[in-house]
This record gives sequence, structure tokens and C-alpha cells, in this order.
Amino acid sequence: MTRIHFWAKTCLPLYFFFTLSANLSAQSKEPVADEAFIDRIYDVSLTNGRCYPWLESLCFQVGHRLSGSPEAAKAVKWAQSMLDTLGLDSVWLQPCMVPHWVRGEKEVVRVKGLKKGKDFPLAALALGGSIPAKLEAEVVEINTWDQLEQLGAAGIKDKIVFFNRPMDATKIRTFEAYGGCVDQRVGGASRAAKYGAVGVLVRSMTLRLDDYPHTGTMHYDSAYALIPAAAISTLAAENLSKALADEPRLKVSIQLNCKTLPDEPSFNVIGEIRGSERPNDVILVGGHLDSWDVGHGAHDDGAGVVQSMDVLRLLKQLGYRPRHTIRCVLFMNEENGLRGGKMYAQEAARKGEFPLASIESDAGGFTPRGFTFEGEEAVFGRFFDKLLTYQSLFEPYGLKFSRGGSGADISPLRGMKGLLSGYLPDSQRYFDYHHAESDTFDKVNKRELELGAASMTALVYLIDKYGL
Amino acid sequence: MTRIHFWAKTCLPLYFFFTLSANLSAQSKEPVADEAFIDRIYDVSLTNGRCYPWLESLCFQVGHRLSGSPEAAKAVKWAQSMLDTLGLDSVWLQPCMVPHWVRGEKEVVRVKGLKKGKDFPLAALALGGSIPAKLEAEVVEINTWDQLEQLGAAGIKDKIVFFNRPMDATKIRTFEAYGGCVDQRVGGASRAAKYGAVGVLVRSMTLRLDDYPHTGTMHYDSAYALIPAAAISTLAAENLSKALADEPRLKVSIQLNCKTLPDEPSFNVIGEIRGSERPNDVILVGGHLDSWDVGHGAHDDGAGVVQSMDVLRLLKQLGYRPRHTIRCVLFMNEENGLRGGKMYAQEAARKGEFPLASIESDAGGFTPRGFTFEGEEAVFGRFFDKLLTYQSLFEPYGLKFSRGGSGADISPLRGMKGLLSGYLPDSQRYFDYHHAESDTFDKVNKRELELGAASMTALVYLIDKYGL
Repeated sequence: MTRIHFWAKTCLPLYFFFTLSANLSAQSKEPVADEAFIDRIYDVSLTNGRCYPWLESLCFQVGHRLSGSPEAAKAVKWAQSMLDTLGLDSVWLQPCMVPHWVRGEKEVVRVKGLKKGKDFPLAALALGGSIPAKLEAEVVEINTWDQLEQLGAAGIKDKIVFFNRPMDATKIRTFEAYGGCVDQRVGGASRAAKYGAVGVLVRSMTLRLDDYPHTGTMHYDSAYALIPAAAISTLAAENLSKALADEPRLKVSIQLNCKTLPDEPSFNVIGEIRGSERPNDVILVGGHLDSWDVGHGAHDDGAGVVQSMDVLRLLKQLGYRPRHTIRCVLFMNEENGLRGGKMYAQEAARKGEFPLASIESDAGGFTPRGFTFEGEEAVFGRFFDKLLTYQSLFEPYGLKFSRGGSGADISPLRGMKGLLSGYLPDSQRYFDYHHAESDTFDKVNKRELELGAASMTALVYLIDKYGL
Repeated sequence: MTRIHFWAKTCLPLYFFFTLSANLSAQSKEPVADEAFIDRIYDVSLTNGRCYPWLESLCFQVGHRLSGSPEAAKAVKWAQSMLDTLGLDSVWLQPCMVPHWVRGEKEVVRVKGLKKGKDFPLAALALGGSIPAKLEAEVVEINTWDQLEQLGAAGIKDKIVFFNRPMDATKIRTFEAYGGCVDQRVGGASRAAKYGAVGVLVRSMTLRLDDYPHTGTMHYDSAYALIPAAAISTLAAENLSKALADEPRLKVSIQLNCKTLPDEPSFNVIGEIRGSERPNDVILVGGHLDSWDVGHGAHDDGAGVVQSMDVLRLLKQLGYRPRHTIRCVLFMNEENGLRGGKMYAQEAARKGEFPLASIESDAGGFTPRGFTFEGEEAVFGRFFDKLLTYQSLFEPYGLKFSRGGSGADISPLRGMKGLLSGYLPDSQRYFDYHHAESDTFDKVNKRELELGAASMTALVYLIDKYGL
């Protein structure tokens, strides 16, 4: 469009006037100074941000980085060396042991024994933690848990169970759709093994119809036999489902070359600016340094890593001296063990630190829509009331505050009576790329990423300045 | 991220409760029924929407479609044939004459005569409406209008003026940044010609640093000589600027093969569902069918076209019988003349119709953020007060209402005392693709597009049901 008499000229000043004037009366102590400082944060992030070139470097110099892999070790060095350049008060590595699962050679999954038509391949990725496989069996498609129970051993034994319940496209927030079917990926193998299944295939957790398989973690229940598990692309799932409708006795061969090796030593990478007044009270910003072993891990969670790093750098560049300790924590092993998150919480407790506020960015580098907050029931109401007095300062940037879960890495801090927060970007595209070969640097928009870093910095600034 | 204990499960119900319960008391007549119907609109759009396959068809079967071109004629037929399948009360073509500018062979722009280093090319696109060029001259870089005035004929005569003022990255809404520098593209040639310039090069209107030139319309002021004008990519602009800093006497050669042919007959494509109670009162949804002659015109404005078509189809599919006439108008020639918009307004006036509400989608197919509204001062306050009573119904979908300009095609309806509205998607990525070869189908996310169509449908429904 051309729009030379441009709407923004008339619209924006009015918009700002209406939204801000309505709220300033209920505002925190220095509304004008806070507005101006937050404005500076966004300006500097958008004109002189480092998160985007950092992400490029992480994606192309390191690449994907599954816990225990040489690339994860390289990522630790990369992050430490970047943080070392920022003039922080300290940068250190926090050791933890992590699982070491390797995919091995590319998996091969094929539909076989069709009466009409030829064998065809299904685009697949072994699920993280799966045992290896070399098998061929008939397939039974399952769309609900009830179906599985009803079929029982009679219908399941010696078969491959194909979990094909799709994400619900009608959920506006895609994480809700994910939450509604990831149980198939995480627990499907053991629930099928209970009835004697020999392997499982799971429809990829994405709303797109395409040929990328999406991997992710799975857990075995030690009460049942361990059977191999792989994700297949949504297109492969549709094709398999159609083929089964025609020929219920078809077979599928599964070859997975993955295995679990002994745990490896690894690290959380941490940098901080020490608080001038309350150094023992920590405001944490973080993301996870590990990723799945496909693509670049750009949105999951390269974005959260570089945004968290840039929060500290932006505060330094703006000359802000925090009252509380501001700490960037790049967690290891969120994807398949949470060992870094658990170790961090254990160490925080051992040192007697107070995790005043912990903010995790692990939902992609998309346009900011808000923050979610949670905390111990006894104190959370007070926190949230205070937080709401900051909310109008975020309105010009389109963010809203809501109650809700925060992030996996910071979840072990629950119970320490601090505030937990999740940075909430727009969720529409996240599962297009999540845990897939397509989660690459080019899928991240520079401005969207930078707006996220600025939003996190602004929240850290307000909590540091006014407490909770 | 894994997040098996998923935030959405705890967050969303609470979020909906807090936002809705706070607002329902001020709500319109049937809040629960309206909520349920709007929910249905989004559900159907996200599971059974037609806008995405329509966009694919428009992009690949028709392609880009500049006014007067054979592709634009094909687009008219395409749109008419699609609307014909929807069982509307009428579908028709509204004739208008349109400009016919053609680019001709690919333009060639080169930096020449460097003492250090070799000649190099600048990625360029002639601006729409430019005269052709075959010239070589020295270059003067201009960053402000003041600079141009101060240099005057002494500094400008016989030179190429290079307008290099970038879009302001600190504007949160990118349209504001666009509005702040598009004057260079539209008026730069004549303002430079006033002082004897022989041609102009304009830095592309985008916030990205890449090698795509972004074209767009320009106007000649008949008081001055007509000189050729082209956009160069932001990377080319940076390179030219650096080269000029080193060697101010370098030359640039410009070859543009474009020309303006006689006006061509073309059409707005219109379909409607006639109102059962007030058929003369029209609720319009629209976008523009023409595009620039590069890429697919996917976001600009293929998205607006297919969303507007799907508003009518969604209402039909849901069995909604409107009180007012609901009309989809696919305007011709927004990009370089607005002839379709002007013809539509002229015909509406001639027929004595009342344009109760006109909603344009021409800001890309991205995640919905809201609607802007404008209207005649005398009646607008009342409209906006009423609209605000609908706003809480859009909160679950993340939309806000604000005052502001609407759309170019519907702007000729100003003065007819109706409401004008612009659909407002997230703007961060729009100018990455705007008027460039990169505005292709793959840049549009299916869900984001469908959420936009649903949002427009919901607004049409509420205005139809309750009036203004």
C-alpha cells in the first residue's frame, strides 16, 4: 500500500495519549522518568542491539547443541566468551552432569507390503531418549487414550502404535494446542508397551501440514518394556492414516540408530551485575543453551539465550546501576533432563540467595505480547497487584500481563517465594519450527527479537527499581 | 522447550476470566451469544478457512498484477470466478480506467569511475511512474530536505540526487517509520529537478539491511522537469554512501527501460450478501487486487483480498443472515492511482448508498493486533463510544481498538458520514517485503492470515447486528 497521508501520523499520538493518560494516575513512583527510560531501552535495543548478531553467531558458529554433544560444549565456551566481553561483575560456569543421547545415522521409516502401490518412506526423527530399533510390524492408529485402552492387548500386541491425534487448530494460543497433545509424544511409548506394542510413531507436534518431523523428549515408565519411538511429519501422518484406511494390514519398518551414552559433564553459563543495595536478592533472566540436534535451535532457544544476554548488556550500555543483582543464566539441558535448572536451584538454596524474580524466555523470538507470572500462593497476590501498576508502561509496546506458568528451567525455583515469569511472544509461528530441521536463523526476525530483549530489560528495570 | 506441565492450562482460563469478567457488564446486548458466535467464526476460519489456499492460487496462478497489465486482467477474472462459487446475492465488475506503466527490461544502475576499486552494480528498481533513463552523472547524497535546499542549484545541477534518509528503527509501529521517509520516494524527483538534478536514486523503504530494492509510486510536479527515479536496496545505499565518502566525484550510470502507456480499462471486483432489513446501508470489507510488478504481492495486498473474500464466505458458512448489505470490494489500482477507490465512491454516491462501515485490510497478513477507526468529526465520537463496547469481545484474540487512519482505497468515502476502519496486523515484518521481489506466498503464515479474516468477520458481525 502507499498511504502517503499516513494513518500513523494521526493515530499514534492519540493512541498514546488515550492509553497512557488513563493509567498514569495509578502509576508507580516516577511515571515520566520511567517512560523515558523504557523508551531509551527500546531505542537502544532496536538501533544497537546485539542479540541478532549473537544469534547469527550461535546458529552458524555453533549450530544445534544437544546436551552432552561436542556442540553443546562449544556453546558453553561461546556463551562464556561473549559474556566475558560485557564488563560484568562476574561470569562463571556452574557444573552439572547431563544425559547424553545420540541420534546416530539418519533413521529410516517405511510403509511396506501394500497390495496397491509401492512402499514409501515416512519422514521421521527418533524421539529423544528412545532406544534403537530395527523392526517391521503391522500398525494400529490411535486417536484417543480411550481407544488404546479399549483395544487392549488383543488389538495392540506385537504392533506399532501410531498416535495421530493432531494439535487443535482452534486454540488461539498455540501452546495450549501443544499442551493438549504432547502427552502422546512423552508417554505414548510406555502406554503402548503396557499392551505389548513393539514400537510407536507419533504425529509431529505442529499445526502445519508439511514434511518436517519434529522431535522432542519422551520418558519410559520402568514398569513396562522399553520400545522405540519416533515422530513422523504431519504429511507422513496423513499419508500413513490414508494408507491404513485402505489397507489395515500394511506393515511399517522402523530403523532407529540412536542410543543413550553415559552422562557427560556440562555447565550452566552465568553472568551477573552485582546489586548495589541488595546483592543477595537476584533478578534472573534466562533461556536454555541446549537445543535438539536438528536445525539451529534458533527460536528454541537461541532466541531466549541472546535476549537474556542482551538484557545485561543493555542495562550496562544505558549506565543503569541495579539495586539487586541482575543475573543472566543460560541453562543447560532443558530439552531432555532439566539438569541445569535443577542444579541452579540447588545452588541458589545452598548459598541462601533470594530469587526475587526469575524471567525465562523460551517461547521463541517473536513479537512481544506480554509476560505471564506465577509464584507461591501466599505472596503472589501482592506481587501481581504491584506488577499491574507497571503494566501501562508496556502498553505502547503492545504487552499485557497475565497470570500463568513461567518456564521449565526456572520451575525448580518454585517454593523459594520469589516471582516466576515467562516472556510471552506471539505464538502463531512457534510450532512451525519447534524441534525441527526448520528452526533456523532465517526464521527469526531481527526487530521481533530485539523488541523481546527490550521488553525483558524494561521489566527487569522496573522490578529492580521498585521491588515487588 | 518441553513444558509438559503446561502454562496454558493454568494461565488461559484465568486470563479469560479476568479480562472478560471485568468487561462484560459494559457489554453489548447479548454478550454470551456474541462470544459464542465470535468463537465459532475463529474456529471455522482456523479449521476450514479458504483464504490461505486462495492466496496460494492468486500468487501462483496469477502472480504479481500491476494495474493495466495482462496479469491484472487475469486477477480480475480470477477474483470474479472465486466469488462466483460462494453463492452470494450478486457478483459484478465495476469498470474504471487505470494507468498503465511498464517496467520494460531489467534496470541497470552502476557505480563507475572509481579511482580505487572497480565499477560495481547497485540493486535497483525504477519507481512506478518514472520516465525512462540512460544517463551517467556525479552523485550528491541528501539526508534532509534542508540539505537539498542549502545545496541549491549550485550543488545539485546536472547531478543525480541520492536520497538516503533511512526509516527510523526506533518507531515501534513500522508504518510510522515508513510515513516518516516515504516523502523522498514520492516527491524526491521533482524536488531535486527544481535545482536541475538529472535523476534520483532513493534508499529503499525498509528496515532490513539486504539487497532487495523496494519500488513504489512517485509523483511528478508539473512545474519542474521530469527526471528518472529508482529505488536502490538498503545494502546498495550503504555501499554507495561509503563509496561517496571516499570518492565524492564518482559517477553512477542509470538505465531504466520503463514507460507510461495509455490508460487501460480495468475493474473493481465486487460481491455482496444483500441486507434483509437495510439493504441500502453497506458494510464493506476490502483490499486491493493490484500489486507492484515484483514478487507475488502476497502481503501487499493479496492477503487483504483473500481475507475480504473469506469474510463473506465465513458468514455464509455460519448461516448468518445480515441486516445490512455485506459487500466485499477488491479494488483496482491502489498502488499507483487509486482509480478503483475513486470510482467506487463515485458510484456509491450516485446510487445513494450509505457506507455505514468500510473496513480495509492493507497492512499485510500478519497476526491481528487491532483495528483503527476514523470518520467525520460530527458523528465519529458516537461511533467510537459504541465500538468500545465491542472491544472486550476481541480481547481473547489479542486485538485493541484505536483511533487512526483506515485505508487508501476507502479514503474517497470520507465525507459520506460512515465509519472507516483499517485492519491492523502486527507490523514488524511488513516492510521487509513491501513492494519487493521478496513479497511472496511463503512469507505469509497460514494461521496469522486466518486469524485476520476471522477478526474482520467478527467486526462485521457486530456492526451488522448492533449498528453504529
